[in-house]
Amino acid sequence: MPIRDLTALRNALASGDVSSEDVTRVYVERIARYDQTLSSYITVCAEEALEAARESDRAVARGRARRPLEGVPLGIKDLIDTRGVRTTSGSQLEGARVPLEDAEVWVKLRAAGAHLLGKHNLHEFAFGATNENPHYGASRNPWDTARISGGSSGGSAVAVAADLSPASIGTDTGGSIRIPAAYCGVFGLKPTYGRVSVRGISPLAYSLDHAGPITRSVRDAALLMDIIAGFDVEDDLSLHAPLRSFGGRLGRGAKDVRIGVSRSFFFENVQREIVLRAHELLERLAGEGAVIEEMDLDLSDVPGAQDIIITSEALYAHHQRLTGGGDLYGADVRERLLRGNGFTAVDYARAQRVRYALRARMRRVFEHVDLLLAPTVAFLPTPIGAGSVSLPSGEEPVRSHLTRLTNPLNLAGIPALSVPCGRSSAGLPIGMQLIGPELQEDLVLQVGEVIERLYPLEAPVLRNQRASEVDLTCAKRGCCAG
Amino acid sequence: MPIRDLTALRNALASGDVSSEDVTRVYVERIARYDQTLSSYITVCAEEALEAARESDRAVARGRARRPLEGVPLGIKDLIDTRGVRTTSGSQLEGARVPLEDAEVWVKLRAAGAHLLGKHNLHEFAFGATNENPHYGASRNPWDTARISGGSSGGSAVAVAADLSPASIGTDTGGSIRIPAAYCGVFGLKPTYGRVSVRGISPLAYSLDHAGPITRSVRDAALLMDIIAGFDVEDDLSLHAPLRSFGGRLGRGAKDVRIGVSRSFFFENVQREIVLRAHELLERLAGEGAVIEEMDLDLSDVPGAQDIIITSEALYAHHQRLTGGGDLYGADVRERLLRGNGFTAVDYARAQRVRYALRARMRRVFEHVDLLLAPTVAFLPTPIGAGSVSLPSGEEPVRSHLTRLTNPLNLAGIPALSVPCGRSSAGLPIGMQLIGPELQEDLVLQVGEVIERLYPLEAPVLRNQRASEVDLTCAKRGCCAG
Repeated sequence: MPIRDLTALRNALASGDVSSEDVTRVYVERIARYDQTLSSYITVCAEEALEAARESDRAVARGRARRPLEGVPLGIKDLIDTRGVRTTSGSQLEGARVPLEDAEVWVKLRAAGAHLLGKHNLHEFAFGATNENPHYGASRNPWDTARISGGSSGGSAVAVAADLSPASIGTDTGGSIRIPAAYCGVFGLKPTYGRVSVRGISPLAYSLDHAGPITRSVRDAALLMDIIAGFDVEDDLSLHAPLRSFGGRLGRGAKDVRIGVSRSFFFENVQREIVLRAHELLERLAGEGAVIEEMDLDLSDVPGAQDIIITSEALYAHHQRLTGGGDLYGADVRERLLRGNGFTAVDYARAQRVRYALRARMRRVFEHVDLLLAPTVAFLPTPIGAGSVSLPSGEEPVRSHLTRLTNPLNLAGIPALSVPCGRSSAGLPIGMQLIGPELQEDLVLQVGEVIERLYPLEAPVLRNQRASEVDLTCAKRGCCAG
Repeated sequence: MPIRDLTALRNALASGDVSSEDVTRVYVERIARYDQTLSSYITVCAEEALEAARESDRAVARGRARRPLEGVPLGIKDLIDTRGVRTTSGSQLEGARVPLEDAEVWVKLRAAGAHLLGKHNLHEFAFGATNENPHYGASRNPWDTARISGGSSGGSAVAVAADLSPASIGTDTGGSIRIPAAYCGVFGLKPTYGRVSVRGISPLAYSLDHAGPITRSVRDAALLMDIIAGFDVEDDLSLHAPLRSFGGRLGRGAKDVRIGVSRSFFFENVQREIVLRAHELLERLAGEGAVIEEMDLDLSDVPGAQDIIITSEALYAHHQRLTGGGDLYGADVRERLLRGNGFTAVDYARAQRVRYALRARMRRVFEHVDLLLAPTVAFLPTPIGAGSVSLPSGEEPVRSHLTRLTNPLNLAGIPALSVPCGRSSAGLPIGMQLIGPELQEDLVLQVGEVIERLYPLEAPVLRNQRASEVDLTCAKRGCCAG
C-alpha cells in the first residue's frame, strides 16, 4: 500500500479502496518493524487504534457521513494531552500521568475522524538540551540513525519521515517543529502565535509556544490547519482573528511573489552547502516568476531577549515542582531551568521591549516583501552525542546554534514553514524556512508548494527489523514501545 | 467670551466671531490670574502662543483653509515632547531639557492648527507617589484648593476644569488620565492600548502607557481622538488597527446598550457617597433604555501583577540614570523605582500570564455586555499631604488605593472614559468609568454623552487673583509660570 501523504491516505479511505483497519494495521506493523531503532514513539496505542479503526469502518458501513479525517490513525507529540492515554511530556516526572481531558487540538482532530496511533517522542518537557531524551531514548534520524533528528518534536518528524504516522502535531517554542522537520526532510509549520489552541498542551514558555502540523506535503499542512486552527475561548493565549482556508492559495505558484533574503543574520555563519542550496533555490524561484529582494535585517538583539523570555517562562511553569523536589528532572533540563533564576524583572521588561521592536520591524519588512526565505538550521544534522559542530566561524556548541535561525520567528509570533529542499552531499536533508506576515499562513503554504514541486519529498530507506522484535502488547499497558 | 468646550471654541473661531489672538489672550490672562494658586502649568508659552495666534489669524485672513483646530491654543502634559520648549516630565533631572523634535501627538495637533499654550504640571516622571511634585508644586483641585487633583496628569485636568486650557493631552499608565479627570470634574479618555502614538512621550511603563484627551465634553474627546489616534509606523508600541470616527456613534443614546456592573472588585471598599451616585446613575441609564446587568468579575489577581509590571518597566526606563547618580530624583520616585529590583524575571512572567488571562476574561465579559460601569476612584479627593483616607474597611493608604479601580484597564489595554457625575455633599466631583471592549472607544463615548446630559458639566468658582500677581514674562524664558 503506497501512501504518499495524509491527503492521499484520506482519499484512499474515502474511496473505500482501503479500510481504516487495513491502514491502521499497516502503521502498527511499520512501528513494530522500525521504531525500536528510531524511537519515534513513547507510547503506541496498537490495540486501541485497531479497535477505533474497526469502529470507524463499522460506522461508515452503517452510513455515517465521512468526516475529513475519517478512519485516519494519527500519532501526536507526547506533550499534548490525550484522555485516558498517558502523556509524559518526555519526562520521568509525568511518566505515568494519564490526562482526564483531551487537549483542544486532539478534540478537534478526533472530531474530524482521526484516532490515536500513539504519542511521539520529544525532548524532556520540550526543553532538553540534547537529542538524547534520558528517559525515552533519542529519536534517531531516519536518514542516518547515528544522527540527531532535531527537537523538540523529534519523534514527530521521525515518525512522519519514516511513515510511521501519516502526519503529526508538534509544538514550537524556539524551532521545535521546524528544526526536526528540516532534519528529517518533511514539512513543519509554526503558525501565527495563538492560531492553534495550546490548551491541554504542556507549556514550555507560554508567550512563545505554538502548536502546528508536521507533514509529508504542503497540502497536508493546510488540511490539518483547517482542522486544528481557530479561536479557543477557553485558551487565554488564543488569537481572536478571522480564519480563511489555509489551502486557499495553493496552486497559485510563485509568480510576482516578492521574497526577501537577509544576508545578515539568516545567512551568517551557515554551513556552505546550505547556503549554496538556498542560492540554487532562489534562482529556481526566480525562474518561477518570484521577485527576489536582498535586504539586511538586523536581528542581533533577538537571541538574548529570546533566551531571557524562554528561560524565565519555563522556570515559571516548572517553579513549584522544581523547588518541591526536582530530582526527577534530567540534569540538563534542571540546569537550563535554573538559569532562569539569574534574570531580573528588568531583564524581562527589556526583553519584552525587544519583542515589540521586532514585531514592528517585521511589519515594516512585510511592507516591502511578501515573504522571507532563510535556512531552517545553520548546519546539517550532527552525530548523536556531539556537543559541537563545525561552522564557518569554527567549532561551535550545537545547542546554542541549533535554534539560532528559527527562534526570532517565535518572538515575532509570525508564521514560518520549514520546507525540505533535497539533500546534502552526505545524503542529509536540507530545510528552508518560508516566513510570512501575521495570519498569512496561506501565502507561506502557497510558495511552500512551489518549493515542494522543485524538490520533491524523498523517503528514507529504513533498516528492516522483523516485526516480532517489538513487543506490541506493551502498548496496551500504555508503556513505552521503544 | 463664554467658552463651553473646545468644539464651541473651535466653532467660534471658525465663524470669525473671535480671533485666535483674542482667544489666546484670554487664556494667557486666565492663567496669569489663577494659576499661581492652582499650579496647573510648569511652563507657559505666553508670547509664543500670542505670536502663533496672530500668525494663524493672518494666514486665515490671507485665505488659508481652516484646519480642525485652527487657531486653538492648547496646553499639554509636560512629558510630551515639544520642539524648542522645555519638557521636564515633572522632574528636576530633565528640568532644562529642550527636545529637538515634537512628539507624534503634538505633530498631529499642530498639523490640525493648534498652537502651544504651555505644558501642564504632573507627578515627577508620572510616577511620584503623592500629589505634591517636589520640584513644581502640587496641582491644586479647583473645587477645593486644599485637596489633591489626582495624578499623574493633575495639571492637565486642573487646567481643563478651570478653563486655563480648552483641553489637554494626558497619559495614563495606571489611571493618570482618569483619576485627575474624575477629581476635577472633567472627561478623561484612556483609549485602547496603542491607539495613540506614544513616540516622543516620556515612558513610564511601556506596556501600560496610554496617551489620551482630557476635555470639557464628550464631543471634545471624540474631536481630539480623531486627530491624535492612528497607527504610527515609527512607534513600536503602536496598534495597526482600522480607525473609524470616534464621534460616529454620538447622539445614539443608551437604548438597549447592555451595561455590566461588577459588585465585586469595582464596588468593593468604595466610599458610600460614590456607590450611591453610581446606583442613581444606573437607574437613570435604565430610564434611558439601557439594560443593566449585574455580574461578579474576579480581578483579585490583577493589582499584584500590575504592580510588578509597572515597577519593573519603570525601573527599566530609568535604570541607567538611577545607577548613574539618582540624587536628582525625588525621594518618593527613587524609592518606588528601586522597588523594581525586588522582582525576578519569573515574577514578571507570572504577571504577564495574569495579563493574558485578564484580556481573555474581559473579552468573555464583552460577549455578554457592551460596556462596564464602575467608579473611577474609590474615594473623594483627599487633602493635599494626607497619607491615608477613610474607606469602609477603615483608614487606608491613599497611594495604593488611588489607582485601584483604574489600573486593571491598563493591564487589559481596553478603553475607559471617566465621566463627571455631579458632586458630593461636600461639593467635590464624582467620576464614573465607562469601560468598553478593545477598539470600541466610539461606543464608550456614545454612552458617555448620555451621562453628560444627565449630569451636566459644572465649572468651579476660582479664587480671583490680579493678573499682575503672575510674571508672565518668565514664560518667555521657558521657566516655571507658577
